[in-house]
Amino acid sequence: MNTTVLFETLQQFSRMLTHMSAFIEKANSHMQKFKTTNIDQALQLRLVVDQFPLSKQIQSSCDIAKLFAARLTGKEAPVYQDTETTYGQIQERIQNTLTYLKTIEEKDFTGWEEKTISFPWMPGQYLKAKDYIEKHAIPNFYFHLTTAYAILRANGVELGKGDFLGALPFIKNN
Amino acid sequence: MNTTVLFETLQQFSRMLTHMSAFIEKANSHMQKFKTTNIDQALQLRLVVDQFPLSKQIQSSCDIAKLFAARLTGKEAPVYQDTETTYGQIQERIQNTLTYLKTIEEKDFTGWEEKTISFPWMPGQYLKAKDYIEKHAIPNFYFHLTTAYAILRANGVELGKGDFLGALPFIKNN
Repeated sequence: MNTTVLFETLQQFSRMLTHMSAFIEKANSHMQKFKTTNIDQALQLRLVVDQFPLSKQIQSSCDIAKLFAARLTGKEAPVYQDTETTYGQIQERIQNTLTYLKTIEEKDFTGWEEKTISFPWMPGQYLKAKDYIEKHAIPNFYFHLTTAYAILRANGVELGKGDFLGALPFIKNN
Repeated sequence: MNTTVLFETLQQFSRMLTHMSAFIEKANSHMQKFKTTNIDQALQLRLVVDQFPLSKQIQSSCDIAKLFAARLTGKEAPVYQDTETTYGQIQERIQNTLTYLKTIEEKDFTGWEEKTISFPWMPGQYLKAKDYIEKHAIPNFYFHLTTAYAILRANGVELGKGDFLGALPFIKNN
């Protein structure tokens, strides 16, 4: 793994956050059209009572991308209080995260191999950077983003795989 | 990106399939204990009527890992007919996929950059290997694996993030 791979992983995280912003916007339009749940109320929907609601799935997706950048570059990340309760606030959270991610350049990842990654929920222990990237950050990012999508799908919002993956750069055969 | 990154991505896919096998086993135990849905019937559960059921989410997770290996190494992959309807059959599908993935070595990925990746649903067009890996294979793999997890969670199976991520190799601080 090298800084190019890490920078491209971050760019892919940014793309996925952009897709999430778009499918939340689509959910808003859907709910207005069919006069079902209000989008602000929908932020409290969850798949099951002991799982986090949509708002927290979105916040987590943002934070995993943000912390991936901050932990591996050492560039301080903005802190958010997870107080978003409206459509406008949650979209702003995504945009603010994207703005921070845009400040990261490939060279900022130099020296990432030496970083040790610790978590508030596992005091006195750390992960090696490589393990953190492969076994925690990437799967966890997609976990929360997919769960946000799943909550909307389970509640009748018309979304498809294309909304999740976004447009793919297909090339025509010669 | 180099062959080491691709090989490690494949190893991570294998780990995740092992986690999936374990959380499906946990679902089986849960359903037997609480005499809720039969696990074979549970393979037909879905989050919403127009989304694929659990069995297909599991089959897709397996196939995305298998095709990642086959497409980028050129080593032929076993073909499955997606006929699994029982717990035993679906676990066997995961194990067969893992057995195939174990036959892949890092050197098999040599020359991956030159591969063009095409799909039956997009005739006459292809993705460059790098785009396929970052923008399709990895997000799609985690999409289906998370959706399998979400279907079980939404149906009351007691699972947590640890079942999804698996044990992380934490190291004690000096």
